[in-house]
Parts: sequence; structure tokens; C-alpha cells
Amino acid sequence: MDRMTEDGSVVLVPVGVVHSPLDEKSNNIPFQSFVSDVEGTIEMGEEYEEGLDGIDGFSHLTIIYYLHKNRKSKLRTVPLLEKEERGIFGTRSPSRPNHIGVSTVKLLSRDGRILKVKGLDMFDGTPVLDIKPYVPKVDLVKGVDNKWLVNKLDEIDSMDEAQRESIQKHLRDE
Amino acid sequence: MDRMTEDGSVVLVPVGVVHSPLDEKSNNIPFQSFVSDVEGTIEMGEEYEEGLDGIDGFSHLTIIYYLHKNRKSKLRTVPLLEKEERGIFGTRSPSRPNHIGVSTVKLLSRDGRILKVKGLDMFDGTPVLDIKPYVPKVDLVKGVDNKWLVNKLDEIDSMDEAQRESIQKHLRDE
Repeated sequence: MDRMTEDGSVVLVPVGVVHSPLDEKSNNIPFQSFVSDVEGTIEMGEEYEEGLDGIDGFSHLTIIYYLHKNRKSKLRTVPLLEKEERGIFGTRSPSRPNHIGVSTVKLLSRDGRILKVKGLDMFDGTPVLDIKPYVPKVDLVKGVDNKWLVNKLDEIDSMDEAQRESIQKHLRDE
Repeated sequence: MDRMTEDGSVVLVPVGVVHSPLDEKSNNIPFQSFVSDVEGTIEMGEEYEEGLDGIDGFSHLTIIYYLHKNRKSKLRTVPLLEKEERGIFGTRSPSRPNHIGVSTVKLLSRDGRILKVKGLDMFDGTPVLDIKPYVPKVDLVKGVDNKWLVNKLDEIDSMDEAQRESIQKHLRDE
């Protein structure tokens, strides 16, 4: 299935698809999964159903997916609520070289090859490349220092309607 | 650069490469980046250097990469220190459909397109697909419940030499 080609490209085959109420016309796109209450499902390909056995032992899953609706690839971007451009690898913007997204969602239930999840920030039809269990002991890193992004996230917690609308515009335009 | 083909495959172009002292013959492969003190560098392609501007404002980076040395793709596997097989998507085994790895490393310094990092668990030559800033507010999820994996990780903290050797064998064989 996945492979490297002679020119060094990596070819991946989606293992599933996201069914989500969100699309490009949505007025309420969560800017990250951790602020999302959006429910939906992840439908895995039939051939991968066996790979889900035991997954309901985890409350949260990290989904690795392809941002198929975003065809912009920038090296610099103005992040959400910021004024200055930054290098793309220091942002979570979807307009990145290789459009890979990583989101952690809550697993509500599993029915065969269908996972019911909460906390989606992906558009309907998003191709899923991998699912890993979310494990705080592995995924939480201590002693983290970020200069600007944490302050911005705090701002988002306490913003007004006009600011929220500007975020939606930013997310749609990006 | 990246694109979806008509058959639905996703083609990605590596943006950088990991230079690491680890290879398949290493006797001390960290089983996850959070237990690793291994230092090395990530060398980004010249055309992506601009995308790193401002990245030194982050203490930790999440690296998304291609497990190029692992050519096994299983749907079930026996996880580290376990006896029973589980579905691959409920494990962190590298032998997964689409060999995507996600590790968080500490950023020590940046020199142009070279990032000096600590906490590597990747082999030398690993192709890097994306780098995102690690932000606890985004990446730390509350209310997580895992039935078995956390206990296993605690076991690893307190194991003896023979058990450590058996882990190395597991990692080499997997």
C-alpha cells in the first residue's frame, strides 16, 4: 500500500473517511479540535475493520488526515488573530506544504468499522491516513514554553461576536 | 507539490530529513520520543527554510514523518510488553497501514534550515512530512481514559535489564 517512489515522494492510501456536518460554507468552523463539540463519524475501509479491535479501550484518538479542501501552500502566513506573518511550520495553518492535519477527538462508540466521535474540526469527506490512541503520558510534554500562541488562545476564550466572525472569515479564506 | 491522484491516493513530498544516531542496528532505540534523550538535527529542504521563521519561539515541535525503514503493514499486533494481539489502530506500532509517525521533540536551536533537536526516536534518514508547533493547550486533552496502555507505560519505568533487552528485540523485530 504506502510506498516511496524513486523521486522520494511518499504515496499514502486513505484508510477511512470523515463524515462531518462541517464544510467550506459552515458558519461555525472550530479552529481546533479542542474547542469543538461537533459530532460525526469516521468510516474506515472494510479491509481495515480488524485494525480497530480493542480501540474502544481508549477515550480519545488522534486522527491524522489529509486537508483535501485546502489547495494553498504557503511558506509564511498571518496566524489567527495575529498581524505579523510567521513561517508556516511555526503555525497550525492548514495552508502548508503537504496538507497533513492532526486532531484529537473523543471516541463515543464503535460499531464495526464506524467510529462515532466528538470534537471534529475536519470538513466532510476528509481522507483519514491513520488513527493512533491518544495517551497523555506519551502526548503531553512537560516544560513547554511558547512565546505567543498560548496568549492568543487565551484571547480566543474571551472574545466578542465580531471577533468570532473575523475568525470564521479567516478560517474560510485560509 | 502534494496532491490526490485519481484513485484517491495522496502523494506527499518530504520537506526535510532527520539526522539521527539511531539506526536498525542500534541497541538503545527509545520506544517513544518522550523517553528519549537522543539529540540530532532536522535538515529542511532549502526551499522550505523561510517556513521556519519564528519557529524558535517554541520549545517543542511535533514532527510528522514517514517510517521509511518499516515495510510491514499489519492489522493486528502484539504491543510492547503485552501478550494479546490488538488492532493496529489501538497501538503505536510502526507496522501500520500508511507508515506515519508523530513524535514531539525539544527544539534546542535553529541555524538556517537546520533544527537541532532532542528527544528523537526516529532512524537516521527519516523523511519529514510536516512540522507543527507543540502547544499543550491544543495538544493536551483532559478527561482521558485508557484501560491498559498507561499501566504498561508505568511498568516500563520500573523494569529490569532483561526486560529492557526484550523491548529492544521487540523494537528491532517489529
